[in-house]
Amino acid sequence: MYELFFKSLTAKISLTAEEQEIFKGYLTPKKLRKRQYLLQEGDVSKHAAFVEKGALRAYTIDEKGGEHIVQFAVEGWTIADLYSFITGEPATYNIEALEDCELLLISNTAQEELIKRIPQYEHFIRLQMQSAYIALQRRITAMFTMSTEERYTNLIKTYPDIVQRVPQHMIASYLGLTPETLSRTRRQMSNRK
Amino acid sequence: MYELFFKSLTAKISLTAEEQEIFKGYLTPKKLRKRQYLLQEGDVSKHAAFVEKGALRAYTIDEKGGEHIVQFAVEGWTIADLYSFITGEPATYNIEALEDCELLLISNTAQEELIKRIPQYEHFIRLQMQSAYIALQRRITAMFTMSTEERYTNLIKTYPDIVQRVPQHMIASYLGLTPETLSRTRRQMSNRK
Repeated sequence: MYELFFKSLTAKISLTAEEQEIFKGYLTPKKLRKRQYLLQEGDVSKHAAFVEKGALRAYTIDEKGGEHIVQFAVEGWTIADLYSFITGEPATYNIEALEDCELLLISNTAQEELIKRIPQYEHFIRLQMQSAYIALQRRITAMFTMSTEERYTNLIKTYPDIVQRVPQHMIASYLGLTPETLSRTRRQMSNRK
Repeated sequence: MYELFFKSLTAKISLTAEEQEIFKGYLTPKKLRKRQYLLQEGDVSKHAAFVEKGALRAYTIDEKGGEHIVQFAVEGWTIADLYSFITGEPATYNIEALEDCELLLISNTAQEELIKRIPQYEHFIRLQMQSAYIALQRRITAMFTMSTEERYTNLIKTYPDIVQRVPQHMIASYLGLTPETLSRTRRQMSNRK
């Protein structure tokens, strides 16, 4: 249950066996079944979730009821409505399991306490925030400037096996395309290979 | 020249006078005149810039030559093409001074060295990254789900006096509106007051 989490951590910072035990005291394992929600809009995002297994999506709903996928999270990613997680304000995102998931939850308070006990954890969080920021920055640039093909390639770069795991209409929603445009683009790309 | 920088730092972490001197050794003051560039697309974003005075914009150019403003930065903000800054890859953003600016530049290497000498600096950077991430998350949500008015209100919340300082067509570009739609929206909002 903790395997991938500690693998991710120890790739960036060194932890003794004792420190790993301390970590476990602050994490809550949680299983979600496909289509269950980790967070619903309007609730407070009390936990950030590290994905040990499975895939989730974060999405917002516009005034007309349309869904817009903001982020996917697969193994090794952390997902939360960060604004809500930090401020305690109601979340604007829904976070839904797209497959059966095994998650490790951590609360904001637990995170701050852990940093006090194991200072190098802050280094890990900083690097994680940096990657998350860059992914978001790329996403904005893609929305503004990239062709449909480039956006699709960009998606695969960010989430390598997402296309196999997630229904096509969600990939289209993430890219801001209709499912028809997406399947036309994929056909064009594979014809050219 | 360093006043606002140390004010921002010491609001989050405590620094001795000696530590402040160490910081100064890693920072390069730089003045930019209005319309000068801190960074041009294709170059490497070698420095992150803390804004002591002035305002800048980061923008990308689409295939048809259209400009899209990704971010503004005013006093107290830090601006860079983070992906380029961290990886050393060419930048996708242009960063231009919108007013005469006083900046404090720090390189990626200097930042990492400073963290080693003054570990609590990492805490500051983590908080700064967190705020930057939230601002970007808000921006994406706004693009997807908010009405023109909400996006305008959101902009003012993120950058309080930006509307007084930046030409209207740039505000419109940031919001993804034509200048005409923006001025109609502003008129409607002020009529209702």
